[in-house]
Amino acid sequence: MPYRAPVSDFRFLFDHVVGFDAVAATDRFAEASPDMVEAILTESAKMCEEVLAPLQRKGDLDPSRLENGVVRTPEGFGDGFAAIREGGWVSIAADPENGGMGLPMAVTSAVNEMMSSACLSLQLQPLMSQGQIEALEHHASDEIKATYLPKLISGEWTGTMNLTEPQAGSDVGALRTKAEPKGDGSFAISGQKIYITWGDTDFSENVCHLVLARLPDAPEGTKGISLFMVPKFLPDADGNPGARNDLRVVSLEHKLGLHGSPTAVMEYDGATGWLVGPEGGGMRAMFTMMNNARLGVGVQGVGVAEAATQHALAYARDRKQGRSPIENGTGTILDHADVRRMVATMKAETFAARAIALACAVSIDMGRATGDAGWEARAALLTPVAKAFGTDTGIAVADMGIQVHGGMGFIEETGAAQYARDVRVTAIYEGTNGIQAMDLVGRKMMDGGEAAFELLDEIEERVEAIRSEMPELADPVFQAAETLREAVEWLAGQEMNQRFAGSVPFLKGFARVLGGYYHLLAAKADPEGAHAKLARFYITRLLPEHGALLAHARAGADALYALSPDDLAA
Amino acid sequence: MPYRAPVSDFRFLFDHVVGFDAVAATDRFAEASPDMVEAILTESAKMCEEVLAPLQRKGDLDPSRLENGVVRTPEGFGDGFAAIREGGWVSIAADPENGGMGLPMAVTSAVNEMMSSACLSLQLQPLMSQGQIEALEHHASDEIKATYLPKLISGEWTGTMNLTEPQAGSDVGALRTKAEPKGDGSFAISGQKIYITWGDTDFSENVCHLVLARLPDAPEGTKGISLFMVPKFLPDADGNPGARNDLRVVSLEHKLGLHGSPTAVMEYDGATGWLVGPEGGGMRAMFTMMNNARLGVGVQGVGVAEAATQHALAYARDRKQGRSPIENGTGTILDHADVRRMVATMKAETFAARAIALACAVSIDMGRATGDAGWEARAALLTPVAKAFGTDTGIAVADMGIQVHGGMGFIEETGAAQYARDVRVTAIYEGTNGIQAMDLVGRKMMDGGEAAFELLDEIEERVEAIRSEMPELADPVFQAAETLREAVEWLAGQEMNQRFAGSVPFLKGFARVLGGYYHLLAAKADPEGAHAKLARFYITRLLPEHGALLAHARAGADALYALSPDDLAA
Repeated sequence: MPYRAPVSDFRFLFDHVVGFDAVAATDRFAEASPDMVEAILTESAKMCEEVLAPLQRKGDLDPSRLENGVVRTPEGFGDGFAAIREGGWVSIAADPENGGMGLPMAVTSAVNEMMSSACLSLQLQPLMSQGQIEALEHHASDEIKATYLPKLISGEWTGTMNLTEPQAGSDVGALRTKAEPKGDGSFAISGQKIYITWGDTDFSENVCHLVLARLPDAPEGTKGISLFMVPKFLPDADGNPGARNDLRVVSLEHKLGLHGSPTAVMEYDGATGWLVGPEGGGMRAMFTMMNNARLGVGVQGVGVAEAATQHALAYARDRKQGRSPIENGTGTILDHADVRRMVATMKAETFAARAIALACAVSIDMGRATGDAGWEARAALLTPVAKAFGTDTGIAVADMGIQVHGGMGFIEETGAAQYARDVRVTAIYEGTNGIQAMDLVGRKMMDGGEAAFELLDEIEERVEAIRSEMPELADPVFQAAETLREAVEWLAGQEMNQRFAGSVPFLKGFARVLGGYYHLLAAKADPEGAHAKLARFYITRLLPEHGALLAHARAGADALYALSPDDLAA
Repeated sequence: MPYRAPVSDFRFLFDHVVGFDAVAATDRFAEASPDMVEAILTESAKMCEEVLAPLQRKGDLDPSRLENGVVRTPEGFGDGFAAIREGGWVSIAADPENGGMGLPMAVTSAVNEMMSSACLSLQLQPLMSQGQIEALEHHASDEIKATYLPKLISGEWTGTMNLTEPQAGSDVGALRTKAEPKGDGSFAISGQKIYITWGDTDFSENVCHLVLARLPDAPEGTKGISLFMVPKFLPDADGNPGARNDLRVVSLEHKLGLHGSPTAVMEYDGATGWLVGPEGGGMRAMFTMMNNARLGVGVQGVGVAEAATQHALAYARDRKQGRSPIENGTGTILDHADVRRMVATMKAETFAARAIALACAVSIDMGRATGDAGWEARAALLTPVAKAFGTDTGIAVADMGIQVHGGMGFIEETGAAQYARDVRVTAIYEGTNGIQAMDLVGRKMMDGGEAAFELLDEIEERVEAIRSEMPELADPVFQAAETLREAVEWLAGQEMNQRFAGSVPFLKGFARVLGGYYHLLAAKADPEGAHAKLARFYITRLLPEHGALLAHARAGADALYALSPDDLAA
């Protein structure tokens, strides 16, 4: 059951659902014509289907390992990365001045999704490099840019992000890694970092670590954190990898999934590094690095959802079991109502998650192309939703894929379980989904909910225009948008911890409503086709969940904290 | 973070929620006095905490394996099983005539839950034997009973169920294994069976396979299936293991979880077996075997939910991260609203699933003790709910446990991921949860919904009586029961496939309402304590989900089948 990249789905969403035409109409992204986008998607789809997809299972069976301090990646991963590098797929959004293609995030997201479907553990590497490239583009000195960006964009060198320490996870401000000035403009970095994704490779010439650390006498907390570039090999005068730096991989984690991707504990013993951005500006640079990486992680969830859906559908269309309960059925388990319900749910949820991710990407692109604060606020609002809902969807859909397979789903050879194992961490890294939800109801509503209200105004206006044409689909979406509006109004008037007590259900409810909206737009564009039928399924069966979720969102903190730790242990 | 068996929770549920006093008041279970139950629970709790719990992780790291045709179980499993055997815990419900204790299923369920929490992969073995013991008690000849039951109940021998074949999973009627009469009252059994849990052990003297097979000229489908006892070693004249039978383990599956438990492909090459029950009576006997095994599997889900909750709570109470958002907090992540919400959800869901399972067990006990058709119908109604909701809860709670651990949750050493891997199959085996839901809306509503209406009458009557005392909790439960009643009325009037199209959401909605009811009873019994606070959490935040679920239940099949296989592949 080979992976087939959903190129036409991307085109449909671009054209009819997420308003990509506005991006292509900007000066900045004028090159992203329909023909260009089609060519990019078709070419990357081919690489994903033919080169990356066969590596998915191999990476699981033959994990990355540490041998005498050197990381050995699974057989074939080197060739797979070479295909990514040679195709220019490491970062198609990067600045053309440094060798990138300067393409929109919407196109990057589509390419990232296809790579994630095909081989998530390998795709993680370019995603890390993309974050690093973006951070350097925004914050690094010209000298660092000139040395590192061309190599990272070309894929000759790879990048990592070093944030977490054992005592500093979600609370980055608690980190202790030190940076001592060496007097020559460089710094000596010392400390231990954990959960370093692709902390080393055996297929890149150099590994460039962006490391958060504290200067001597830096203030406590996040204000005292600075960002440093700490390469595995120090670039020589010609910019080629030179002397080995004083850093090493101590160990690799034994993980639930993503076995192909080495997750390292890194030790820095006075390693040489250079400041990126101003002293004390580490958190700001880190947010640049993490912000679009959050969308990238949401897209990983969508990619796994797509792959798991294709995988389960192929099984269901093939597996015969029991008498068909319908006339003119296929004679397979897909005739059974509950199997069809599961596969339709997988399909409908994947569509919703993809639409939300691409709408977020379009907002990022429009903000960059126009500098319009409204677009920037929209992008900021949608990013935590795209991250959390995309990854929750990846997890839920992969789990449903196991169930569609019945007993075979529990057997590793089938491959269904690997999707579920691999995707599980996406709800945790780049900020847990709980942190995303706090960001949504906290930081993203510092404006009193304005960005959310503007989105809701737009939704209601467009839904209103569709109402006469397809009232049975549009009415529930309109009502749901109103319920979401009421929840935003309520939240915006509460203290932070009252909001946080229902933030995760709020985010899920928000995504439910957005999903209904995008399904409706798809139905309008394809009123007699599969999109309209899928929209009807989603709006009738899944959208109603928003009611309980948004009620939960407004439950407040008091009854929650009434349950003391001792009550919970009772 | 050692497992602590929740003995007082069982006592609370028995005394205040599921009406165990009625069971103890029957003649049949007169021995199950409070003192006796307390002694049983305390003694088995000790074994689970001290002997079984330390095996949980060992079984994962050191899987059962096949060496030269012989199954080798993980180190320590033999000693663990010896403790189960010596304590008499294999089957405390079995008939005292054969060495059992004749105790109620409610007590069996509590003991099974504790063993499941402590070491699911080992507990699976006694669960298999329990099903076999029950089938033999009901259907076997006196001779077979005399030979096998004392050995199975004592744990000297172990039992398996052989149903599935590659082409016959949920559709058992498609099986092809043959049974040829040998002329001496025995049969030659030939065929391949898959997914045979504990298909062999290295800690029991004999392994007794109950095998479904077809006699020559048997009709097609389920009517042509008979059940056979096919032991690994043929009993000699003294009833001791004698000659090796012609059967073997071909291979063991490589599974997502439950690595300690060997899941075998079994080959029967003219193996000698004896008929259990009449010719063609295999399905009936199998249902006896599976019916209570379904409750047993639901209880496995509850056990994992309990263990995962304890595990996550211990981590959350210990892990410091970020500034506490509340005054007088613990200074750990449990102070954060979303972490507390997750742990409270885990606790509230585990309570609901346990209450449903024990209410089902009490109904089984009352049916057996009184022969009352109403109790038997209640047990039949609750069995698929207990199975599916218990296992769904185990899966959801274990997944939430991963999330509570953050990055640590994805690292296998933490143990959180193992709960999620191990419990995943419980939603699949003993009839997938989709099959359970079809059973609930199909077979269990052949009575026009009468059993459900009787349960709802009882719920509404008891809730009505609590209304004046705690209206803010009782009112939503009453309303939810009314909504469930309307859904049952709707379903009972529909053709089967219309019901099946929403059967899984219906089962989930049914369980949501039952959970609200049992939480309310707990609140009434402990109005100022932790139970009332947990009930408020559940009723305010989780119970509202029943609305969308029961609306989904009534969505019907037409719009679902409008999505053709090609639409889903589009």
